[in-house]
Amino acid sequence: MTQTVTASMIVIGDEILSGRTKDRNIGHLADILTAIGIDLVEVRIVADDEAAIVEAVNTLRARTDYVFTTGGIGPTHDDITADSVSRAFGLPCEHDARALALLAANYAGRGIEFTEARRRMARMPVGAEHIDNPVSLAPGFRIGNVHVMAGVPAIFQAMLDNVVPTLKSGTKLLSVSVHCPFGEGTIGGPLGDIQKAHPDTIIGSYPKYQDGTFWTELVVRSRDGEALARAEAAVREMLAGLTG
Amino acid sequence: MTQTVTASMIVIGDEILSGRTKDRNIGHLADILTAIGIDLVEVRIVADDEAAIVEAVNTLRARTDYVFTTGGIGPTHDDITADSVSRAFGLPCEHDARALALLAANYAGRGIEFTEARRRMARMPVGAEHIDNPVSLAPGFRIGNVHVMAGVPAIFQAMLDNVVPTLKSGTKLLSVSVHCPFGEGTIGGPLGDIQKAHPDTIIGSYPKYQDGTFWTELVVRSRDGEALARAEAAVREMLAGLTG
Repeated sequence: MTQTVTASMIVIGDEILSGRTKDRNIGHLADILTAIGIDLVEVRIVADDEAAIVEAVNTLRARTDYVFTTGGIGPTHDDITADSVSRAFGLPCEHDARALALLAANYAGRGIEFTEARRRMARMPVGAEHIDNPVSLAPGFRIGNVHVMAGVPAIFQAMLDNVVPTLKSGTKLLSVSVHCPFGEGTIGGPLGDIQKAHPDTIIGSYPKYQDGTFWTELVVRSRDGEALARAEAAVREMLAGLTG
Repeated sequence: MTQTVTASMIVIGDEILSGRTKDRNIGHLADILTAIGIDLVEVRIVADDEAAIVEAVNTLRARTDYVFTTGGIGPTHDDITADSVSRAFGLPCEHDARALALLAANYAGRGIEFTEARRRMARMPVGAEHIDNPVSLAPGFRIGNVHVMAGVPAIFQAMLDNVVPTLKSGTKLLSVSVHCPFGEGTIGGPLGDIQKAHPDTIIGSYPKYQDGTFWTELVVRSRDGEALARAEAAVREMLAGLTG
């Protein structure tokens, strides 16, 4: 029996939309979720704008089993993710006592003033659970099915490592990649027929263009190993017919 | 007088959501739009799924001046962008006569069969205008304010070059970057005060983490050069006070 678990992602930050920072978190989350059998079904990149964040959070938390956000949880005025997620849930956003204690002890030990800005990093919706941050200490948090994490890739990745063991995993989507030396125009017709004949699989066709030549990567996916093998065999037979 | 022109982007493709392909088009579009004074306000990555594409197209074309899509316009069964965009507009999706003639002549000249799959690449909503494709010929298209382009980066970039001269441009957002040797916790409080005192600017704070050290890139943006200069001076004065 197969189980489908779905996820979505919200990347928060003006700097991504302006091109100043190139996102490196989407691909990482996609890789990790695929590896553990969770389907990432939608990603949204939104500005540092409360209304935009609230809309994305409320739409996607109703639609997918898990939501992952990156960005906007630092100490500056443009870090509004904690407030926005709290508003999406209709919860007050307050300084979390445990996070305050954690940060206070850390800054005291380093002889650094625990400023009001730094205290902002302890704010989260009432009732949220911490997501530990082994890199720079200030925690992310989980509220409901929404996981709120940092945008700095090293911190995001470390936080995600802490989240993964808590996720229910779907039946892993198996996949096999078949190299196709032809462009999509050559194989598009027969490939469509193979897809129709193998409804338990998802057959993707990804055009590649390099040095003036087109080739195609064909990827067959299924949660059923036998269905996968049957569809893969059909694809390879089709390709052999074209080269032979 | 300033004019704001907004845009959104829809990246279409299972291969991005699975992590198999890492998107390279979002950052490129963001850079180009910023350079010509158009604000990219939202990006969505959706699956090769008609309902998902229709929803994204209809939401975003109502919300922003321009919509740009990438992916799903090739010749295979999983290329459903033309059909989905047509459905979003309530228009029939048909083989475009000029696109068919263009492709037919090209394939005839190269002695390649003009298969039904290849003919799919000439399909678009009735009334759409071509977006020329100098790389592999099969055109993208524009319908209403939606620009439908290829997912292969070399082709996307070439198509976008052809679209840019047709866009109305906003007043360019000016920006200046100020290196801040401190972490966000140190400057978060005073920076928030500067933002409040300079409402005609957008002050962004982007934490950087490298080799165990935090620093911050501060970016001041404005459509008004004098307002920008005043806010930049305030930021530099604040930083000088911290180092002095």
